[in-house]
Amino acid sequence: MHAVIISIGDELVLGQTVDTNSAYLSERLSSRGIMPVMHLTVADDQRATADAIRRACEIADLVLVTGGLGPTDDDLTRQAMADVLGVPLVRDEAALREIAAFFARRQRPMNPRNEIQAMCPVGATMLRNPVGTAPGIKATMGSRKAIVFCLPGVPGEMYAMYDLHVGPHLEASGHRPTLLTTKLNTFGMGESDVAGLLGDLMRRDRNPVVGTTVSGGIVSVRIRSTFTDAVESQRQLDDTIAQVREHLGDIVFSRDQVTLAQVVGELLRQRGMTLATAESCTGGLIGQLLTDTPGSSHYYRGGFITYCNDLKTQLLGVPPEVLRQHGAVSEPCAGAMAEGALRNSGADIAVSVTGVAGPDGGTTDKPVGTICFGVAQRNHATETHRLMLGGDRAFIRLRAAYTAMNLVRQNLLIAYC
Amino acid sequence: MHAVIISIGDELVLGQTVDTNSAYLSERLSSRGIMPVMHLTVADDQRATADAIRRACEIADLVLVTGGLGPTDDDLTRQAMADVLGVPLVRDEAALREIAAFFARRQRPMNPRNEIQAMCPVGATMLRNPVGTAPGIKATMGSRKAIVFCLPGVPGEMYAMYDLHVGPHLEASGHRPTLLTTKLNTFGMGESDVAGLLGDLMRRDRNPVVGTTVSGGIVSVRIRSTFTDAVESQRQLDDTIAQVREHLGDIVFSRDQVTLAQVVGELLRQRGMTLATAESCTGGLIGQLLTDTPGSSHYYRGGFITYCNDLKTQLLGVPPEVLRQHGAVSEPCAGAMAEGALRNSGADIAVSVTGVAGPDGGTTDKPVGTICFGVAQRNHATETHRLMLGGDRAFIRLRAAYTAMNLVRQNLLIAYC
Repeated sequence: MHAVIISIGDELVLGQTVDTNSAYLSERLSSRGIMPVMHLTVADDQRATADAIRRACEIADLVLVTGGLGPTDDDLTRQAMADVLGVPLVRDEAALREIAAFFARRQRPMNPRNEIQAMCPVGATMLRNPVGTAPGIKATMGSRKAIVFCLPGVPGEMYAMYDLHVGPHLEASGHRPTLLTTKLNTFGMGESDVAGLLGDLMRRDRNPVVGTTVSGGIVSVRIRSTFTDAVESQRQLDDTIAQVREHLGDIVFSRDQVTLAQVVGELLRQRGMTLATAESCTGGLIGQLLTDTPGSSHYYRGGFITYCNDLKTQLLGVPPEVLRQHGAVSEPCAGAMAEGALRNSGADIAVSVTGVAGPDGGTTDKPVGTICFGVAQRNHATETHRLMLGGDRAFIRLRAAYTAMNLVRQNLLIAYC
Repeated sequence: MHAVIISIGDELVLGQTVDTNSAYLSERLSSRGIMPVMHLTVADDQRATADAIRRACEIADLVLVTGGLGPTDDDLTRQAMADVLGVPLVRDEAALREIAAFFARRQRPMNPRNEIQAMCPVGATMLRNPVGTAPGIKATMGSRKAIVFCLPGVPGEMYAMYDLHVGPHLEASGHRPTLLTTKLNTFGMGESDVAGLLGDLMRRDRNPVVGTTVSGGIVSVRIRSTFTDAVESQRQLDDTIAQVREHLGDIVFSRDQVTLAQVVGELLRQRGMTLATAESCTGGLIGQLLTDTPGSSHYYRGGFITYCNDLKTQLLGVPPEVLRQHGAVSEPCAGAMAEGALRNSGADIAVSVTGVAGPDGGTTDKPVGTICFGVAQRNHATETHRLMLGGDRAFIRLRAAYTAMNLVRQNLLIAYC
């Protein structure tokens, strides 16, 4: 089964808005083994829309159209569908009642303009919109008897309409999801080193196929399983996940959308421990990432943003001679910062970051990207590290924050497992 | 002049990647008064690519193709161009030397695979790629004599190639930029209230046209000036900017990409003042936003992330009776936090935030979204505020951080102007 996706809107062809609907729909279709062969984007123009639908019906069995179903003069998908079908538009009374009920629920008067949204090409079917005023349209068209679904362009409405109408139609016609995907997230190793460890698992002719992608220093191992049998697809996916985990060990910190900050939080919670932070060049980023997660007050006590040097001494007790002798970007300073944060916060473990995020402030000894870390725990020797991180200021800061959280993770894994 | 934009790539039709190239190119073309009439996206397939190019040349005078110029077997744009032109591919020696030089500069051996990138359809012109190995292709095609530019799909390379080849071609053929746009960023008022203040300036038939968009609580006023004469366009843009500023007063904090944190930094720097932060529910976000800007160490001393209540007392001296009587989310607590941060940091001005970011922790008195702020300065009465912010946890935190920075901005504007 071949599919074509059509997006309609002046804002799209003029480049004022990036079209994300087409990628969303393509991804949904390909997860059911349906191959999208083309995306077409046209302006709010009746003839261009009709031409696009006509052409799509020549090459595809399934056509998904988004946009042009609103109540204003530049919403012309209904008319274009009627054109291609060679039929007039008639009012669908059930659809009109739905639209009226939508306004009634919100206690707002219905604008007479919205009546146009109840117009349906003769022979087509209106599709109920559970979250907006624009009903969709479904019709069978062209010599290939292509099924055409017209959905609203507003992403939230489109998603709901896809789930309510398109998904069940495909399910009923035997296109069940057979493509299963997952990703395992790693930190602490470059992409090519991860690929090296994965070895043959990354062969392109393998199924499930294994690939890597990098985002903000996190290397994710993507696994796509595409067996025609859904049960087999799942079994093979699980098997490959186990193999990837075996090859990579504990650089894998989570699966799918779970963040490093959430993993650190979960480990702290399991061990009944609390954390404090001492940040210089990251300026609060670690605290922000940790507190993105609701409930983080159970394990994160708080932190110190000691951006200027005298606050390092004043708030964290970093000895002035450490700053004089080694500078603020040094392992001794990072160690003293972590110890000070531990002492002054009452937490069980503290992590610190101090470095040169750039673009200025680098020296020969300590170029931009030099970052020092400290981890302090009661009854443990304080640990410090010095790393050289590449990239621009934002990337260096993000990688520094991830590295700090990963040091906490590793400490929790090793010391209390 | 009509244009069609073609994007090529399996990852695009499969929905694994959102196509941002088409929107980018559309926006560049429409700024020169050239109307993109269609976007077409096809898979890495020679026939589909050739069909798309052929069809585009039937309806457009200018065709921009991105993708399919890499060195691997699934890069087929060169072959598709040769197909449509009905000519063979020949090796372009100058292009080959450029590719070899690219590898030499990076001290890496050239893979023989890359030689294919020097193949050019007979009669077409190779376009130099200043930032990658894939040269572009330019040709005149079809009965309309459409000009076709093939550019690499990697966004960074595509932008550079557009600037080097497409822009100058359009400039030379008389398509000068006549569309001028800008935006003025505001904070502290909802979109409909901003629209209310703008009144007739927002009439759709006005030129320059004025519209509003919201992102993360920042309401931006967008202005598009589209006179055929470039000088007139600029004059009218400037005139509308002045009118918008007059209508909105000091809720306008910046123009185009300048952030609220940068504006606060600039005001502090002008006044020779330093800032400290005391954050509870924002957990370091304000510090992070302030230190996103290089050089922020000149005016930001640092801050306190007092996420748990006892740190509010321990680090900032918030009296335990304030916490007992009013709770941590209260104006008295926010005031004491700001005063403690001022005292313990040595800064000239301090701002504090404490609130319920949710999704849990709300009460009848203090539902999710209740946020209190304090601003303390030496020789000034401490100022406190209580606001109710809507949205989810991430949005509440972001709005709270912006509100805190905006309070600092307003204080700096009023007290020291």
